[in-house]
Amino acid sequence: MIAGELYRAGDPALVQERAASQALQQRYNATTVSDVEDRTAILDQWIGSRGTGCALRSPFYADYGYNIHLGRDVFFNYGCVLLDVCPIHIGDMTQVGPYVQILTADHPRDAKTRDTGLEFGRPITIGRNVWIGGGALILPGVSIGEDAVIGAGAVVTRSVAAGATVAGNPARPLVSPASSA
Amino acid sequence: MIAGELYRAGDPALVQERAASQALQQRYNATTVSDVEDRTAILDQWIGSRGTGCALRSPFYADYGYNIHLGRDVFFNYGCVLLDVCPIHIGDMTQVGPYVQILTADHPRDAKTRDTGLEFGRPITIGRNVWIGGGALILPGVSIGEDAVIGAGAVVTRSVAAGATVAGNPARPLVSPASSA
Amino acid sequence: MIAGELYRAGDPALVQERAASQALQQRYNATTVSDVEDRTAILDQWIGSRGTGCALRSPFYADYGYNIHLGRDVFFNYGCVLLDVCPIHIGDMTQVGPYVQILTADHPRDAKTRDTGLEFGRPITIGRNVWIGGGALILPGVSIGEDAVIGAGAVVTRSVAAGATVAGNPARPLVSPASSA
Repeated sequence: MIAGELYRAGDPALVQERAASQALQQRYNATTVSDVEDRTAILDQWIGSRGTGCALRSPFYADYGYNIHLGRDVFFNYGCVLLDVCPIHIGDMTQVGPYVQILTADHPRDAKTRDTGLEFGRPITIGRNVWIGGGALILPGVSIGEDAVIGAGAVVTRSVAAGATVAGNPARPLVSPASSA
Repeated sequence: MIAGELYRAGDPALVQERAASQALQQRYNATTVSDVEDRTAILDQWIGSRGTGCALRSPFYADYGYNIHLGRDVFFNYGCVLLDVCPIHIGDMTQVGPYVQILTADHPRDAKTRDTGLEFGRPITIGRNVWIGGGALILPGVSIGEDAVIGAGAVVTRSVAAGATVAGNPARPLVSPASSA
Repeated sequence: MIAGELYRAGDPALVQERAASQALQQRYNATTVSDVEDRTAILDQWIGSRGTGCALRSPFYADYGYNIHLGRDVFFNYGCVLLDVCPIHIGDMTQVGPYVQILTADHPRDAKTRDTGLEFGRPITIGRNVWIGGGALILPGVSIGEDAVIGAGAVVTRSVAAGATVAGNPARPLVSPASSA
């Protein structure tokens, strides 16, 4: 699964891992920002790795949790979904708006293959000091360079250069990388 | 309401039905995937009909519940909203991404009529083995044929042919139906 | 912050205000529509001002709450997010679909300034009898005139005239104001 090969979500080991992740998720989402100790303990068990100063507003949703790797001071606003069937890496200081979805999970485009229940994923890497606006969707296999800006509601189907600003559905560059320097 | 005629959401019988639906919804969304018996019992009361093997990740939101009809092995990821003031039918094996909205609820375009509080709805039908990407919106009156693919973030304002792939806002065909066969 | 000047979200007074807001939010979102007295009491403490007959379906998310000002009979469907670092005013009878985001919170486009942690906001004003479709995003500084219709999934980056209908990403006018009169 992590290598990007076709797999079945119904594999018993994966079902058990997702159930464990969702149990932690349910506990995390029942806390508030003031429950600092509880939240830290749950994130230690749930998220693959993270630097200091990260803030994940509840609710926060993931598939497995262990494939999520965050730098320091990463911020997620309300309701973000990270489907981490493949690794998700996010750099320091990156800020993520409400209901942003970072989706490594993919499905075969071919209807007959999809009908067999096989799925696959592709990793996502996001650099440091990126700002992702509310409701943006980051699709499988995308890389986003440092200092980039992803407009609210952007559907990011292709990789984004460092310092670039993209917006729209599908997302297109708005300004050249140079202009944000 | 179910027939697509203008109605008032404030009608006392409808208010009571929605309150009953929301009570079941609150209970369902407080469970985790491991609470199999509880979840099955709640869905039996809440959802109009469903085949075997359906999975509705919490949270899941509806208006009434009883107008939702699912085939077998239908999957909803986190946070889907089904506003079922009119019937919603979904075929076997169809997979629905996070935060997808299936909205039969409509409002008069004419400001004066809307100001009176009158509303109406139009049914939605989705075929078997459809894949609906995260954050897509399926609007009132739309039908989606079997084996179709709805891109993440697509705003589906018109019906989609069997085997077609659509994406964008508003959603447009990306490839011909033949190419996904 | 309310005046639109650069501020730090990590300011201790703001951190405390957001924690208080999120505690009320957590309590509100744990109630159902039948808990009328509890919900009224929480909203009285949480939301800046509101007219009679407002309905905010749970879950409902805000940054502070006290910068939100609602007319009478305003309706929010499931999962709306109002980031109210600056004032949000919404007129009578306006109806807001599921997962709509009303975002006054902004971030510097310049990567170096953003990297310092400084942020700012711009107020949002929405008139009476507006209908905002599901998943629409209303961005900082936007004003929406009375009787307007915002299509589902619209990303509203510019102000909208009274009576106009807009849709798309970014949102563009669909019909002239006259045609909806």
